[in-house]
Amino acid sequence: MNTNDEELLSDFHENSPDAKGKKRRALAKIITLIESTLPDHRVRADNLLNALIPESGKSLRIGISGVPGVGKSTFIETLGLYLIAQGHRVAVLAIDPSSSISGGSILGDKTRMEQLSTNEQAFIRPSPSSGNLGGVAEKTRETMLIAEAAGYDIVLVETVGVGQSEIAVANMTDMFVLLQLPNAGDDLQAIKKGIMEIADLVVINKADLDPLAAGRAEANISGSLSMPPMNDSQLPVWIPKVLSISALKNQGIDTFWTNVMSFKKLQSANGNLEKRRQDQAKSWMWERIEAGLKHDFRTHPDVARELPVILQKVNAGQMAPSVAARHLLDYLKH
Amino acid sequence: MNTNDEELLSDFHENSPDAKGKKRRALAKIITLIESTLPDHRVRADNLLNALIPESGKSLRIGISGVPGVGKSTFIETLGLYLIAQGHRVAVLAIDPSSSISGGSILGDKTRMEQLSTNEQAFIRPSPSSGNLGGVAEKTRETMLIAEAAGYDIVLVETVGVGQSEIAVANMTDMFVLLQLPNAGDDLQAIKKGIMEIADLVVINKADLDPLAAGRAEANISGSLSMPPMNDSQLPVWIPKVLSISALKNQGIDTFWTNVMSFKKLQSANGNLEKRRQDQAKSWMWERIEAGLKHDFRTHPDVARELPVILQKVNAGQMAPSVAARHLLDYLKH
Repeated sequence: MNTNDEELLSDFHENSPDAKGKKRRALAKIITLIESTLPDHRVRADNLLNALIPESGKSLRIGISGVPGVGKSTFIETLGLYLIAQGHRVAVLAIDPSSSISGGSILGDKTRMEQLSTNEQAFIRPSPSSGNLGGVAEKTRETMLIAEAAGYDIVLVETVGVGQSEIAVANMTDMFVLLQLPNAGDDLQAIKKGIMEIADLVVINKADLDPLAAGRAEANISGSLSMPPMNDSQLPVWIPKVLSISALKNQGIDTFWTNVMSFKKLQSANGNLEKRRQDQAKSWMWERIEAGLKHDFRTHPDVARELPVILQKVNAGQMAPSVAARHLLDYLKH
Repeated sequence: MNTNDEELLSDFHENSPDAKGKKRRALAKIITLIESTLPDHRVRADNLLNALIPESGKSLRIGISGVPGVGKSTFIETLGLYLIAQGHRVAVLAIDPSSSISGGSILGDKTRMEQLSTNEQAFIRPSPSSGNLGGVAEKTRETMLIAEAAGYDIVLVETVGVGQSEIAVANMTDMFVLLQLPNAGDDLQAIKKGIMEIADLVVINKADLDPLAAGRAEANISGSLSMPPMNDSQLPVWIPKVLSISALKNQGIDTFWTNVMSFKKLQSANGNLEKRRQDQAKSWMWERIEAGLKHDFRTHPDVARELPVILQKVNAGQMAPSVAARHLLDYLKH
C-alpha cells in the first residue's frame, strides 16, 4: 500500500468529532477509486478493500425496488429519517444500469431526498455510471462493504423495477423489499416477472389514496408470495408478508420496521441470514470470475482475430457452434 | 479424418434401398461418438460434424414439452405416424438432464412409442445420459444436425416440464409447443414459471375427457400468451395460439399440423425463422465457450490448489469476493 492510501485509511478511521468532514471525504475518495476504470486505481481499491473488509459486514442490508412513480425516494427519505431518529446511521446506494447510458443516475438529484441527503448520519451515493449491470453491481457491492466499515449500520440499496437489476439487488442484500401501488394490474406484472418470488416483504405504498384497492392488492399478493422451503433446523423461518403504508404521510413506517426486525431476528436464529450472505459471496465471486474469463478470452489476440471469421461460418451454417467454441478455446492453450 | 470415419461417412451417404440398415447403423455410430466423453472420440465427432454440417439445417425443428402425465409419448407417436403418412421422415430426440442421475432416460423405453419406434421412416434416440444440462443439450443439438444430414425433415425434441430443460429445448428449436392438461391449476404453474411466454403453440391434450375444462383452459391461457414484439419488416408475425386435441383418439392432430405449417410459412416470410436459428447458433457457441473457459479455469493447477484457500477466506469475510476473483484470474496470466 502506498503512502497516499495509508493516509486515506488513517483519515477514514478518524473518530474525533471535528474530523467528520475528513472522514467523509476519505470514504468518498475510496469509493471513487472503486468506481474508477484505471488499472492502478483498481490495484489501490483492492488494497483498501483488503484492509477494510474485516470491519465490514456489520450492517443490515435492505434492497428496495419498485416501478417509477411508486414512491421509492419518499419511502427512503421517510424510513431513513425514522432510523436516524432511533440512533442508526444510514447509507443509501443505488443500482441503475441505465445511468451508464444517460450519464445520470436515479439518485443523481439529491433533492429527491432533501432532508436525508443533508443529514450527518446519512450517506447517499448515486449509482455507478460505468459498464454493464454486472460491473455496476460489483461497484455497488464493494461500496456497500466500505460504507459498512465506515460505521453505517443500515444499508439501503435502491433500484428501479426492471427485472435484472432487481435480481442483482436481491443478490446483494439480506432482505428484499418490493414497493407496489394499490393497483391490481401492477402486481400481475410482478408475478409474471418472478419478482414476487424473491420479495421478503411487499409494501403497498400510497395506500391512503385508495384503501379499498390496497386491501384487494394485499389479498392478491399474499396468495402469490412464495412459501419458504423446508428447513432442516426445524426452527421457524420467515414467511413473506404484505403491508400497506403511506410514506408521504408517514403512516406505517413503524410497522414496516417492526417487520424488518422480526425478519432479522428469525433469520439470524435459524441461520438463514448468514447462509444467504455466504451464498451471495460465493455467487458474486463466480460471477466476476466468469466475467473476467470472458473478457480475457475476447481480448486474446488470436481469438480477437479469428472470432469474426468463425462467427461468420457459424452464421452461414458452415460450422457447428460447438465445434467453433472448441476451436476458439484451443487458441488459449497454445 | 481417419479411414474408419471416411468409411462411416460413406455408409452414412449410402442411398440404395438395400443399404438402409448400413446407413442407420452409421448414423447411430456417429451419434455414439458425439455422446462419448473420450477425447479422441470428441476429435472424430468434430471432424464428422464439420463434414456433415453443410447437409444439415433442412428440417423443421419442433420442441415439445409438458409435465409427466400430459401424454407427450402418445402425442409424439400419433403426430409422428401422421407425418410419415404424409411422406415425412421423423427424428425424435430428447433432453432429460435427470437421465444422468437415474442412468435411464424418459425415452429409454421404446415401448412408449410402439409403432413409431419400429417404423423405417422414424429415428428415435433417447436423451444423452452424461453430464449437466448444458452438456446434455449440446449433444442433443449435435445429434439434431446429424439427423438432419441423414434426411430426417422433421425433428421433434421432447423434454419434461421442469423449467431449465424447457428453455434449453426452446433454444434449439424453430417452434416450441407446450402440452397442457384441461386443468386450471396446471396453467397457472406454467405462467409463473415463464414457460408460457416462450410457447409458440399451447396444446390442451386429453381435451375429450373434460371439454368444458378444456374450453376454460383455452380462454385462460390465451390471455397469458405473450404478444410478439414489433417487427421492423411490417410483415405479419406469428401470434401464439391455443388448441384442444386428443392425441389418444387422434382428434385435432391435423389442425395442429395446419397451425405448424402456418407458423412456418409466416416466420419464413418475415425472416424470423432464419433470425431465430442464427441467434440460437450464436448463443450456443457462447454458452459452450463459457462452459469451456470455466472448466479450463477450474482445472488450472494454480487455481485448483488456491481455490479452496481463497473460498474459505471469502466465506469467512476476510476477502472481498471481487478481489478474490481478480486474484484467481491472475493465475491464468502467468
